[in-house]
Amino acid sequence: MKEKKFTVVESNLVYEGAIISLHVDKIRNNEGKILEREVVEHLDAVGIAALDTNNNIVLVSQYRHPLKGDLLEIPAGLLAEGEDPADCAIRELKEETGYRAKKIEKLAAFYTSAGFTDERFYLFFSDDLEEGESELESDEEDIEVVLIPLEQAVAMASRGEIEDAKTLTAILMAAQKVGRIGL
Amino acid sequence: MKEKKFTVVESNLVYEGAIISLHVDKIRNNEGKILEREVVEHLDAVGIAALDTNNNIVLVSQYRHPLKGDLLEIPAGLLAEGEDPADCAIRELKEETGYRAKKIEKLAAFYTSAGFTDERFYLFFSDDLEEGESELESDEEDIEVVLIPLEQAVAMASRGEIEDAKTLTAILMAAQKVGRIGL
Repeated sequence: MKEKKFTVVESNLVYEGAIISLHVDKIRNNEGKILEREVVEHLDAVGIAALDTNNNIVLVSQYRHPLKGDLLEIPAGLLAEGEDPADCAIRELKEETGYRAKKIEKLAAFYTSAGFTDERFYLFFSDDLEEGESELESDEEDIEVVLIPLEQAVAMASRGEIEDAKTLTAILMAAQKVGRIGL
Repeated sequence: MKEKKFTVVESNLVYEGAIISLHVDKIRNNEGKILEREVVEHLDAVGIAALDTNNNIVLVSQYRHPLKGDLLEIPAGLLAEGEDPADCAIRELKEETGYRAKKIEKLAAFYTSAGFTDERFYLFFSDDLEEGESELESDEEDIEVVLIPLEQAVAMASRGEIEDAKTLTAILMAAQKVGRIGL
């Protein structure tokens, strides 16, 4: 990112909640024109493309209220205050699936939808897992673990069957990482 | 997506704006527990991975207020009421960069951040472009067109230098499409 070319003229906090807050700002561009921008502040989030010893990618299926249905995703969650993103990736994987990542590495960090939210997502990778018990909290009890061979996941991505943005990116980057994609 | 397992007990509209609206809902899960969920309703969006005759991917750099800085992205924009996503991809590419896509195809459709928003993004691809003049509206005057060789863009993605989620996905899927990634 380069330096900003716009200045904030007015900023109104409309809502402050558990996960998000909403500001409606008035900003002035270089030509002096005033524009309105709606900004959702969101906690940063972390997820992991995790491969088991059989080269399955470890996914979870869970209810997502904004979509009024279930969605297939990589294990992911919100970064706690002061928490290291890598520790968060290990924690979320363990909580949601039981797998313990013995070694992880960072694949990418990106803004999920920069037009309206500051949410940043940290994506990690591990192919060094140990099986164990999941530790779900009561409001996450509906999470179901789904193992899919990485090559099949890549084929699903190509056919448009992966509907979650971070999961699509995770599958493509994991395939690139383990050499299923030759670059 | 599978069928929903949660029912909405209460839904409160907190904000209704130009691009987004915000609901805070109370939902009941299968065990009868009541959970609160913040939902940002967002217009669907469309973008395009467009390659010119020299195999450059056509990107744009623009100010994104939520990040207080500029971001490198594929040409993209909001789907107008009743507009076909493919038509929208062609329109946004033309408006922001001047390029006219003579033939396009769909790569994917995905939810940008399903934990809190229903925003769905339609991703298209074209390697059949004709140069022309851009048609920017006054509040988009800061958009700068950036051409990057696809292979270099893939390398940037691998190094974590692509900070926009949809653009990262677009680069990886475009590379897969044109056979720079062998699957």
